[in-house]
Amino acid sequence: MAGKFISMRNLEFLIYEMFDTESLTQYPFFQDHSREIFDMVLDTAMKMGKDILFPAFSDMDKNQPEFKNGKVIVHPVVKEVMEACGEGGWIGAHTAYELGGQQIPNTVMTAFRGIFAAANYSACVYPFLTTGAAHLVTSFGSQELIDRYVPKMFDGTWQGTMALTEPQAGSSLTDISTTAYPTEEGYYKIKGQKIFISCAEYEGIENVVNLLLARIEGAPPGIRGISLFLVPNRRYDENSELVANDVICTGIYHKLGYRGAPITQLVLGDDNNCHGWLVGEPHKGIRCMFQMMNEARIEVGMGAAAIASAAYYAALEYAMERPQGRKITSKDPNEPQIPIIEHADVKRMLLFQKAVVEGSLSLIFNCAKYVDLIAVLEGEERERYELLLEVLTPIVKTYPSEMGILSTSQGLQCLGGYGYCDEFPLEQYYRDVRIHAIHEGTTGIQGMDLLGRKVVMKNGKALFLFLEEVEKAISEGKSIDEFASCAEALQDALEELKEVTQVLTGMALEGKIELFLADATLYLELFGIIAIAWQWLLQAMVAKKALTGNPSSQDADFYKGKLYTFRYFFEYELPKIQGLASRLKRSGDGLTIDMKSEYFAD
Amino acid sequence: MAGKFISMRNLEFLIYEMFDTESLTQYPFFQDHSREIFDMVLDTAMKMGKDILFPAFSDMDKNQPEFKNGKVIVHPVVKEVMEACGEGGWIGAHTAYELGGQQIPNTVMTAFRGIFAAANYSACVYPFLTTGAAHLVTSFGSQELIDRYVPKMFDGTWQGTMALTEPQAGSSLTDISTTAYPTEEGYYKIKGQKIFISCAEYEGIENVVNLLLARIEGAPPGIRGISLFLVPNRRYDENSELVANDVICTGIYHKLGYRGAPITQLVLGDDNNCHGWLVGEPHKGIRCMFQMMNEARIEVGMGAAAIASAAYYAALEYAMERPQGRKITSKDPNEPQIPIIEHADVKRMLLFQKAVVEGSLSLIFNCAKYVDLIAVLEGEERERYELLLEVLTPIVKTYPSEMGILSTSQGLQCLGGYGYCDEFPLEQYYRDVRIHAIHEGTTGIQGMDLLGRKVVMKNGKALFLFLEEVEKAISEGKSIDEFASCAEALQDALEELKEVTQVLTGMALEGKIELFLADATLYLELFGIIAIAWQWLLQAMVAKKALTGNPSSQDADFYKGKLYTFRYFFEYELPKIQGLASRLKRSGDGLTIDMKSEYFAD
Repeated sequence: MAGKFISMRNLEFLIYEMFDTESLTQYPFFQDHSREIFDMVLDTAMKMGKDILFPAFSDMDKNQPEFKNGKVIVHPVVKEVMEACGEGGWIGAHTAYELGGQQIPNTVMTAFRGIFAAANYSACVYPFLTTGAAHLVTSFGSQELIDRYVPKMFDGTWQGTMALTEPQAGSSLTDISTTAYPTEEGYYKIKGQKIFISCAEYEGIENVVNLLLARIEGAPPGIRGISLFLVPNRRYDENSELVANDVICTGIYHKLGYRGAPITQLVLGDDNNCHGWLVGEPHKGIRCMFQMMNEARIEVGMGAAAIASAAYYAALEYAMERPQGRKITSKDPNEPQIPIIEHADVKRMLLFQKAVVEGSLSLIFNCAKYVDLIAVLEGEERERYELLLEVLTPIVKTYPSEMGILSTSQGLQCLGGYGYCDEFPLEQYYRDVRIHAIHEGTTGIQGMDLLGRKVVMKNGKALFLFLEEVEKAISEGKSIDEFASCAEALQDALEELKEVTQVLTGMALEGKIELFLADATLYLELFGIIAIAWQWLLQAMVAKKALTGNPSSQDADFYKGKLYTFRYFFEYELPKIQGLASRLKRSGDGLTIDMKSEYFAD
Repeated sequence: MAGKFISMRNLEFLIYEMFDTESLTQYPFFQDHSREIFDMVLDTAMKMGKDILFPAFSDMDKNQPEFKNGKVIVHPVVKEVMEACGEGGWIGAHTAYELGGQQIPNTVMTAFRGIFAAANYSACVYPFLTTGAAHLVTSFGSQELIDRYVPKMFDGTWQGTMALTEPQAGSSLTDISTTAYPTEEGYYKIKGQKIFISCAEYEGIENVVNLLLARIEGAPPGIRGISLFLVPNRRYDENSELVANDVICTGIYHKLGYRGAPITQLVLGDDNNCHGWLVGEPHKGIRCMFQMMNEARIEVGMGAAAIASAAYYAALEYAMERPQGRKITSKDPNEPQIPIIEHADVKRMLLFQKAVVEGSLSLIFNCAKYVDLIAVLEGEERERYELLLEVLTPIVKTYPSEMGILSTSQGLQCLGGYGYCDEFPLEQYYRDVRIHAIHEGTTGIQGMDLLGRKVVMKNGKALFLFLEEVEKAISEGKSIDEFASCAEALQDALEELKEVTQVLTGMALEGKIELFLADATLYLELFGIIAIAWQWLLQAMVAKKALTGNPSSQDADFYKGKLYTFRYFFEYELPKIQGLASRLKRSGDGLTIDMKSEYFAD
C-alpha cells in the first residue's frame, strides 16, 4: 500500500453501494452513461493521480512558486496537469454537450476531484478552479462570452480564477470597492485591487480568466450593488491578437502549506486600460456567486477530506510497519517488538482518522448526489434536494475542514518524532489541510450561515427535511437488532438538536439577534457531528447487508472495518454533542458578548 | 502591545498573588531572596527576551540549521544567547551556591524560562537543555565529573544534551542498545547510535556534554539494564587539551517547526574511541532520568503554553486593529467597519486562547511551587507534594501541549487568510507548538503513565491527594455566592472522575490490563480538563478578592478578564468531560482492542 492516498474500494462503496450513482442514468441528461463509463473516469483519475500528481506532491511544496521580476514561476508539473486535464476533457466534463462537456454526474466528478486532491491538493487547484470559473460563465454569461472563453478554459489553455477578496473586504463582501466604469463599447473599465487570488498569474499559461466581483460606478452600497465580471489578464485586440489587459500581479504570498499554488495580489486598471465584461445582471453578482457556492463548498470539504485521507493512509502504512514496544500484557524485553498498530491507543488514533475521513466522504457524496438530482428533477422533488443541500452546505464544508485538521494531526502523531520531520509526508499534509477552515468562508462564517440563514429559511423547512432524512435512517436502524442502540443514541442526539435549535431560535424571535448567533460555531459543530453520525449509520446498514451476501474475504474485511468504525463514531465522537448541547442551551447568558475588549488587555 | 508575547502582569499574578512565591524565603535555602530579587530576574528575562530572542524568532525559522561538510551551522544568535545566559548565571541559577548556582526558586526560574520560550522557543532550548543536563550531573555525578563539566555548562561555554532515543527505541526505552564497555581506566567505551538529539553538535560551541542512556556490556535486558553516562563530544587528553571523542554527528532532521534548534543523529564509538563516564549507579540510569523527568515535563508544558501565549497576543493585537464587517444588528454598509474583536465569535476564539494559556500557566506554576516545596520540606509534608507532582506531571505536560495546538490554531484562525501567510507569525507558532505533544513522551505515553502508574501508585494516594486539593477549592468556592454554581459543576465533574476511575481500575483488578489502559488517553484528557477547571476556580477567587481591594482601573480590567475567562472555561470547556466520561464508562467493550489490523486494509 506504499503511496496509497485514497481508497478506490471505498469510493466505489460510496458511489455505487451507498448512493447508487448508476440510477442517475435513468434520467435523459445522464442516459448515455453507465457504470463502465464511471469506472473508466475513476480509473483515469487514479492513473493520473499516481503518474502525474502524486510524484510531484513533495517537490511542489519544497519548490514553491516565486515572484521574480514581476513574474510568477510555478512548478513545471502544472503545465502537464493542465494539458492532461484539458486533453482528457476533465475540466468541463460535467457540462452539457452543447457547451463542450460530457454530462458526467457531479457524483462521479466529485470522486475524480477527490482522487486528484488526495494525490496533490495544490496541483488539483489549477484545473478545478478553472472548472468553477467556467461554470460561472456557462451559467450566467452571454453566448459571446461563452464562445470566446469557455473552450479555451475547458481545453486547459487558459486558467480560470475566482476574484472576490480585497484588502479591506475579506469575510465582508459588502465592502468590496473595486469599481467598473461603463463604456459605450459595452465593456467596463475595471479599477481596483484583489488579494488572495489563487493562480491568477503564472509563467507558462497563455491567459487567465478572472471571475471578479466589482461595483458598477454609482451602484447602491452594500451587497446589493455588487456585480460579477469576467476580467482576463490578456484580451483580444481588434486583430484578434492577445494583448495585456492592465491586470498586474504585484506579488504572491508565502504560506504555511498549499504551497504548490501561487496566491496572488492583483492591481487592475492602474493604466485605466483594464476591460471587463459583465456576467449576469448588474448588481446581482453575489447572487450568481452564491448559486455556485454550494458546489464550491462541497469541493472545499472534499479537499480537506482528501488530504486527511492521504494522511491517514500514510499513518496506517507506518503503523503497520514500524515495530515499537510490546503488548502491555507481555513486557518481556527478550520478545521481539510488535508493529505499533497492535497498540490499542494507535488503533484508536487510526479509527478516529478513518471515522473522520470516511464519514466526511460519505456526506460529501450524499451532497454531490443531491446536486445531480437537482439537475434532473423538477418542482417539489427538486426543491426538496435544493433545501437539503442548502442546510448541509455549511456542514459539508466545515466538518471535513475542521475535523480534517485534527485527523491529520493524529496521523502525524502516529509517527511520533518522524511525523514532525519532512522525510515523511505527514508534516506537509498537516500544513496543507489547515487552509480549508479559512477559504471559501471561514468556519465562523459557516456557523452564521447555518444558524442565521439555513436553519430559519422558509420557516425551517430545510431543517425539517434534514430531520426527516435522519429519522428515516433511525427508524430503519431501530428495526435491526445490531443497530438499535446506536439508532436510539442518534434519536437522542436529534432531540438535543431540536431542543437547542428551539432555545436559540427563541432568542431570534425575541429580536435578540446577537445572542442568537453568538455560539453559532458551536451549533455548527453539534450539527456536523449528528450529520456524520447519520452517514455512519447509513454506511453500517449497507455494510451489514453486504456481509450477508457472502462477499470475498477482502470485501468482508472491508465491511467489518466499516462496522467497527461506525461503532467507534458512536462511542467516541457522537458523545461530544453532550458538552456542546449543554453550553448551547445556556447561550442566553451572552458571555462572549459581555466580555469587553479591554478585559483582554493584560 | 505590538510584539507582546507573554503578559508580565499575569506572571506576577501567578507568582505572587496565586502561589505566594515570596513565602518561600522563610526557608533557609531561599532565605537570601526577596520579591525585589525575583522581580529583577523577571525583568532581566523580559529584557533579554525582547532584545535578543524575539528579534531572531522569525529569522531562525527562515534560516534553519544546515548540515554541510559534516558540520552543523546554526543561527548566529545562538552564540549570543548562550553567552548572555552564561554571563548572567541563568543556566544554573536554581542550583545550590556550592555548585555554582544562586538558589533561585524553581517557580521564578519557570517564569524566566516561560518568557524565553514565548519570545523564541527554539533559541531557549540551547541554554535550558544545558540546565537539565547539568542538573543530572549535579544530582547523580561524581565530584570529579561535577568539577570538570558543570562550571563550563553553567557559563554557557559547553552545551548540554539528553541523549535517549535510538532508531529502534523511540517510546520504548527498554530497547536501547547503545553499549558501554568497561575499561580498566575507569571510563567506559561507548558504541551506538542516537537520533532526535537536540543541539548535540553545532559550529561555534566549544564542547557538547551528552547525558546518554546506554547498556553496560552484559547488563540484564530491559529497563533494568540501562545506565546513565556522560559522553562529551570532545574530551581532555593527558595534556588537558580538548580532543575529539569519537562522537560523530551524521546529519540533522528538517522539521515542521522548532526549526531554530538542530535535531541531530549521532554515531558514537565508530573508531572505538568514544569515552563515557558513568553517572549514578550501574543499571539505574532510567531511575536517574525519571527523577529529572517531572521537571523536564513541566518545562515541556511551559514551552507549549509559552508558544500558545505568544500566538494569543499576536491574534489579540490583530483582532483589536483589523476592521472587518459590522455588528449583526447594524448591517448598514455606509457605517464604518468595526474591529473584529467586536464580533462575539472572535471574542469566543480569544477567550478560548486566554483560557487555555492562563489555565495552563496556572497549573504549571502550581507544579513549580510543588518542586520548590519538595526541595525545602521533609517527611510527610514533602511526600504530599511529591505525590501531587507525580500525578500532575502527565497533565502539566499534556494539557498545555495538546490544547496549545488548538489554541494556536484558533489564533491563526482569528487572522483568516493572513494567519496562513508567513508575513504574520501565527503560521510559525502553529508549526512550532506541534512538537510538544511528541517530545518527552507522547500524549499516548502520558496517558498510560497517568492511569497505569500515577493513579494506582501507593493504593491511589496520589489521586486521593489531588482530589483533596480540588475539594478544598470547591468548598471555598461554594461559600461565595458568585462561585457556588461553578463550584458545584466542578464537584459533579470530580464525581464523574471518581466513577470513571472506579470503572477502569475495576478492570485492572480483574486482570484486564489491556482493557484498563485502552482509553487512557481519553482519561488523561478528562483529568486535564478538571485540573484546569480547578486552577480557574482558584484564579477566580483570587481575582474576586483583589477586586474588592480597590485596584487601579487597569488592574480591575485584568481581574475582570480573569473572571470572564473563568466563566468561559466552566461554560465551554468543562462540559467537554461529559462526552469523555460517557465513553470511558463503556471502555469495557474493548472496541479498539477488537478492531483487527486487516479491517483497516481497504
